[in-house]
Amino acid sequence: MKLVNYRLKYPFAQNRIGILKGEKIVDVHKVHEFVANHIDSNEAGTLLPADPNEFYLNANANIMTLERLFSRLQNPPEHISFQRTEVILETPIPNPSKIICIGTNYADHVKEMGGDLPEYPVLFSKFNNALIGPEDDIHKSTVTEKLDYEVELTVVIGKKAAKVKKENALDYIAGYTIGNDISARDLQKRTPQWLQGKSLDHTTPVGPWLVTTSEISDPSHLRVRSYVNGEQRQSSNTEQLIFDIPFLIEFISNIMALEPGDMILTGTPGGVGFAMNPPALLNDGDQVTLEIEKIGTLENKVVNV
Amino acid sequence: MKLVNYRLKYPFAQNRIGILKGEKIVDVHKVHEFVANHIDSNEAGTLLPADPNEFYLNANANIMTLERLFSRLQNPPEHISFQRTEVILETPIPNPSKIICIGTNYADHVKEMGGDLPEYPVLFSKFNNALIGPEDDIHKSTVTEKLDYEVELTVVIGKKAAKVKKENALDYIAGYTIGNDISARDLQKRTPQWLQGKSLDHTTPVGPWLVTTSEISDPSHLRVRSYVNGEQRQSSNTEQLIFDIPFLIEFISNIMALEPGDMILTGTPGGVGFAMNPPALLNDGDQVTLEIEKIGTLENKVVNV
Repeated sequence: MKLVNYRLKYPFAQNRIGILKGEKIVDVHKVHEFVANHIDSNEAGTLLPADPNEFYLNANANIMTLERLFSRLQNPPEHISFQRTEVILETPIPNPSKIICIGTNYADHVKEMGGDLPEYPVLFSKFNNALIGPEDDIHKSTVTEKLDYEVELTVVIGKKAAKVKKENALDYIAGYTIGNDISARDLQKRTPQWLQGKSLDHTTPVGPWLVTTSEISDPSHLRVRSYVNGEQRQSSNTEQLIFDIPFLIEFISNIMALEPGDMILTGTPGGVGFAMNPPALLNDGDQVTLEIEKIGTLENKVVNV
Repeated sequence: MKLVNYRLKYPFAQNRIGILKGEKIVDVHKVHEFVANHIDSNEAGTLLPADPNEFYLNANANIMTLERLFSRLQNPPEHISFQRTEVILETPIPNPSKIICIGTNYADHVKEMGGDLPEYPVLFSKFNNALIGPEDDIHKSTVTEKLDYEVELTVVIGKKAAKVKKENALDYIAGYTIGNDISARDLQKRTPQWLQGKSLDHTTPVGPWLVTTSEISDPSHLRVRSYVNGEQRQSSNTEQLIFDIPFLIEFISNIMALEPGDMILTGTPGGVGFAMNPPALLNDGDQVTLEIEKIGTLENKVVNV
């Protein structure tokens, strides 16, 4: 299943959680309402939340309910479905309690950035001010001259994960999406800590949707690519991760409890603009396209602000 | 004014925002209700929120309203006041959208940690999982052998701050509190990024209350001290900050917009346990006491978990 955070263009409305089915968006809360009222009254009771933040507070349980309900609805009726052109897609999880990024997690990227292979995963963070969605522009503010892209497979946590063993780690995942760990290299590197180059306002696209674990049972063999204005820049596969996803969840959850909706951006492969010769950083008008196998495409334009 | 996040011991109740007045806690929402009902009906309308998170979403405006209301209430009636023994004080702002920490911001601490004086402020972060209050214990989990204390003057933002000039920066502050930037030195230093040593579950006391800017108009001359089991370890003054608070707010707000309730831990002076010879790190049962002039004392016990 592909879950979106959508908003109707008209009438202006709140963000709601939906399912992408072909070219249509089906409203999750209304799916539940329709099944309870017209198909099976045993499904009545507390309906699945309409609000994406609320939905992800109990992500794995809600996804399981939704999969059961949706399987009973061969043809969602018109009044609970919308054309893609009627809606705006926003970032799937708008308010995670943590955005954890993994640095230096592909060997070729470690080499191009001039570092050593890590003995432990390198963790850093972004704040929610940085998050944008698949239809938003990446803001290039005057505070940086060196804005760069980084395609990353992004894990979304589905239930509270504290001291998890890697053997069980995949059970704690709600699904996967694409993250663009946009980095202001000048700010990132002017002090020993990267945060100030990683969390600029309105810079970090995540989306276009969450693909649940029923569609990606194994995240360890996914092709990962990025393009700028159609030119391929990064091309790798999640098999190349130095620390794989189960290991990362065990590692992080032994330090800090992960909550539903938390995101882990798992690191980027070689080919970032900063490391090219000459460097090819992002400028006003550039189109950055990220592709991850089984998820889709996340494309955003860079605009000067 | 000193604002607390309190919870009645009996009956079990939600966390609420209160004012510390002498030895008593006065409920903010009920202050508004009482003034509107019994003193001035012009104060009726939307009452100040009872919930601390909601109160801080609009901190500076709410504090201004509260100061006006409270000045009209010489003796708060018994039914809206509680003895300290009747309540538990929790961390004053339980769910900030950002916890930003400043590294290496006192020259003597830079020296003891073996670094260079910074050209720009060093920013790093904690997540909310780390936050605890003045009556909580600091958890020392088995993942670290080197837990350390750091007393820090902590700024709480009062209104949205984007691209603020340092001349106006103090206008964006709701008030000040004490932060203990507890750090697992082994985890902090095993990779180039500090996050994993800074955001362990249930490790970072902040409190005991927020002191509003009406009581601290100038944060640049406050004595800052820490003690472990009564032995003084750190002693400095915020005049020693390399980057002062107005500069920090200008610097940060030009990179990322600050929201009401966001916290900035402004850095720690020399005297941390890791830098002592021999190192004197925290162990089960240790009492860590922090004092900042005009704010008060924040004392927490370390417990093995």
